[in-house]
Amino acid sequence: MSDTAGTRLDRQIAFLNEADKLKSTIRATELCDKSRYENSAEHSWHLTLYALVLADQAGPDVDINLVIKMLILHDLVEIDAGDNPIFGDHDIADMEAQEQAAADRIFGLLPADLRVELRTIWEEFEAAETPSAKFAKSLDRFQPPMQNLKSGGGSWTDFNVTEAQIHERVGAKINIGAPALWDYARDLIADFFAARPRL
Amino acid sequence: MSDTAGTRLDRQIAFLNEADKLKSTIRATELCDKSRYENSAEHSWHLTLYALVLADQAGPDVDINLVIKMLILHDLVEIDAGDNPIFGDHDIADMEAQEQAAADRIFGLLPADLRVELRTIWEEFEAAETPSAKFAKSLDRFQPPMQNLKSGGGSWTDFNVTEAQIHERVGAKINIGAPALWDYARDLIADFFAARPRL
Repeated sequence: MSDTAGTRLDRQIAFLNEADKLKSTIRATELCDKSRYENSAEHSWHLTLYALVLADQAGPDVDINLVIKMLILHDLVEIDAGDNPIFGDHDIADMEAQEQAAADRIFGLLPADLRVELRTIWEEFEAAETPSAKFAKSLDRFQPPMQNLKSGGGSWTDFNVTEAQIHERVGAKINIGAPALWDYARDLIADFFAARPRL
Repeated sequence: MSDTAGTRLDRQIAFLNEADKLKSTIRATELCDKSRYENSAEHSWHLTLYALVLADQAGPDVDINLVIKMLILHDLVEIDAGDNPIFGDHDIADMEAQEQAAADRIFGLLPADLRVELRTIWEEFEAAETPSAKFAKSLDRFQPPMQNLKSGGGSWTDFNVTEAQIHERVGAKINIGAPALWDYARDLIADFFAARPRL
């Protein structure tokens, strides 16, 4: 669609209709009741609720309203690029190139002012440099372990993950923006692995 | 759980784990590609994106960050009370009583300060009296028609709905908080019904 196709509202609605596809992007994490795998749209909603409920874990420089906006937008590029499970093997440079191309296309559906506004929020999240982005990234890493603990292992079982790998790939990242949440998760994860039969 | 059971974080996580069940509450609206019915968690995410993208439709007294919080929380009571399709027949008083009991139980999982904070936001949405609540309610009514137009009828077909019923049950409510969105939807709905074969 060119920059001038349709009215402003046509372009806003075209973007919102395209975003509907995120409900069909499947993640590696199961629902707590193990009934099915989670999709990226409902995951994004759950993370915004994490931000509301765990705002007291954010440092003083975190803007929680901005964190929520980041979490609403953070997975939209997966409509084209798909979800990359944290315990899978990916070519990072290739994945980032795919996500940038997806951002060009998907945010490109919007009128110019909104395209810049929302792309800027997503880029801030991706860069993970500001206090708000670090906190948002930590929540994004913290939710899957909470689900795995409820569903009896979830992606840890599917990917045959060790406790040390969780510390390295997940814990280190939760710890950057929300250290008390990593302390909390680490203890529950230790209990889970101690109680689990050896594979 | 009593007010003193577990640590603060235990209670916050218990609430967030309970909220996971909203991913299993099925709505009457289909996804745009007609592949399945939408659940209330992904619907809630989609609405927060509607608020971000359509913020220019909000009046000057609307606090868009508060609107987003309302939309994150607005359907949580459906975990217990279920979704009530707008074209279905419901006993309104019975439905409201069920939703209040659900709010008591679900928000009651939280520490007292958060329980009050989030319940207050949900009650403001439910009352639909403030500018922010009216705008949030209008978005909640505006998204299903957009999906139905893409999926070829969706809940309109399932419930054998007339154009006049959409004006009455949906349009009037969109019009309260977002009149230009109702103008937009009304024209698209007129085109849809004009093109549809008579049932």
